[in-house]
Amino acid sequence: MKKAYYFGVDVGGTFTKAALVDAAGKILSRIQVSSAGFNNKAYFAETLYRAVLRLALEARIPLRSVRGMGIGLPGPVDAQRGIILSLTNIRGWSHFSLVRFLKGRVPFPVFIENDANCMALAESRIGAAKGASFALCLTLGTGVGGGLILDREIYRGPFFLGGEVGHMPLDAHGPVCECGGTGCLERYVGNQAIAARARKVFGRDVRLEDMSRMARSGDRRAGKVWKDVALHLALAIGGLMNVLGPEVVVIGGGVAQAGPALLTPLRAYVKKYAMRHLKAKVKITAAALGNDAGLLGAALLAKEKLGQK
Amino acid sequence: MKKAYYFGVDVGGTFTKAALVDAAGKILSRIQVSSAGFNNKAYFAETLYRAVLRLALEARIPLRSVRGMGIGLPGPVDAQRGIILSLTNIRGWSHFSLVRFLKGRVPFPVFIENDANCMALAESRIGAAKGASFALCLTLGTGVGGGLILDREIYRGPFFLGGEVGHMPLDAHGPVCECGGTGCLERYVGNQAIAARARKVFGRDVRLEDMSRMARSGDRRAGKVWKDVALHLALAIGGLMNVLGPEVVVIGGGVAQAGPALLTPLRAYVKKYAMRHLKAKVKITAAALGNDAGLLGAALLAKEKLGQK
Repeated sequence: MKKAYYFGVDVGGTFTKAALVDAAGKILSRIQVSSAGFNNKAYFAETLYRAVLRLALEARIPLRSVRGMGIGLPGPVDAQRGIILSLTNIRGWSHFSLVRFLKGRVPFPVFIENDANCMALAESRIGAAKGASFALCLTLGTGVGGGLILDREIYRGPFFLGGEVGHMPLDAHGPVCECGGTGCLERYVGNQAIAARARKVFGRDVRLEDMSRMARSGDRRAGKVWKDVALHLALAIGGLMNVLGPEVVVIGGGVAQAGPALLTPLRAYVKKYAMRHLKAKVKITAAALGNDAGLLGAALLAKEKLGQK
Repeated sequence: MKKAYYFGVDVGGTFTKAALVDAAGKILSRIQVSSAGFNNKAYFAETLYRAVLRLALEARIPLRSVRGMGIGLPGPVDAQRGIILSLTNIRGWSHFSLVRFLKGRVPFPVFIENDANCMALAESRIGAAKGASFALCLTLGTGVGGGLILDREIYRGPFFLGGEVGHMPLDAHGPVCECGGTGCLERYVGNQAIAARARKVFGRDVRLEDMSRMARSGDRRAGKVWKDVALHLALAIGGLMNVLGPEVVVIGGGVAQAGPALLTPLRAYVKKYAMRHLKAKVKITAAALGNDAGLLGAALLAKEKLGQK
């Protein structure tokens, strides 16, 4: 069989990344463009097509060897019907039949998926959860995204909102969340919540990167902030472990760069909340694919949807 | 095709129930025996066989029309290999290959499953979640059992501990649970926890049945106890809704007999914790099959395992 290649696209509110990926998940060429103007759908399609041509040219891959394209999006997606259900970052894209729109505008099949689900797929196929059939992947940043792999498949749920770990309530009387819930995990471990806690502990603004560095060099106040983040994460993760029993929990996103300052207390706390039978079984680990997880997952999605496992 | 029948067995620590069930889930005859002595496995097999003969005779169904038997057990079960992984109520049954043991001792195929999973299966096929592909079923009693139906299948997870909703941690600094976790839901809504809360509110022992009755007739103190139970349940259910998005949440078990005193505040609280998109979508309802859910689920399990959907 001839070699097959796939495009992976990761649409963000500010930037959109695209890459040409081989069947093993290796990135051959990549590009990043501004997402400004994507509310004009024709402009988006044009930009995408130009990116495709450039990526193929750069990697010296003939376009006819590209089997398909996967697109990850920062909102709930009806992956079966190819419709974006809701997207706040780009005007006019809610309820947009993106797959139908791109038909004929790009010369291969297109598949779409929620971006956290793409990341989970990539980590479970070629990343930190490789080999695991059941994995829970968290992306910690401004928001807290989550993706679930159950029995080797992305779990979407009946309403395509599967895996929203960031919106597990942790405190009955906690702050109201913009999702409509109350006391959500995101309110305690999202970037803003961590920054606010750091401000309290240090009496001034401290950047998260600096707090990671400080924790690494043994600063107790920084360690305290990360421990508190770990405790909240552990409550949510512990609950999902006891209900779903994933084999691997993958922690990714910017906040995860705190490294052991976050992961060491997280592992200890999760042991506190997990059932006896699970304590030793579940592996908690840092994401392996970094910022490329979304891109790669989108490309792998296209590959798997086309039956090329 | 000739009519097919199945035996459903629900093994409890004190009593074991068995029934002969038709393909539509109708119970034709039933029996209850003491579980005392089941640590003697030969005695168990003998008792089971005698029950089978009697149930068939009573229902006037020839034994050759019985296609198989399902057995629900109060512990984690490796349903694929037919092994009980852990059982505290009956001595010597942990790591017991029950299916292999019964081969030749009963004249049809035997399938085993965790009892909460059996209940969830029954409620999702012929009970309160009928027609739903995704359902979360809770059984409230001394313990808090849970069963998950995802995409019409029982969710077992990689370690056969799937659905242990009773062990979702609700409070980082809560009481240690016998499961090995901390602050588990069961510590707040299990029978003993409710009885303890009632004792505090009323200044004396009040039976749960009486508290249900009192709440129905408008007693505010009883209502307060049930509201508190509802609040804790809502935190766990809200979290699982946002992650798994079940279409129906079924509340069963003895405690659920509180009826609207529990369900009305539960629905209100779940709305507080669920994401906006899910608030109106998820139905929270009382179990429909009562104490028969385990039996029926075991029989339906056998039916489905034998490919007779």
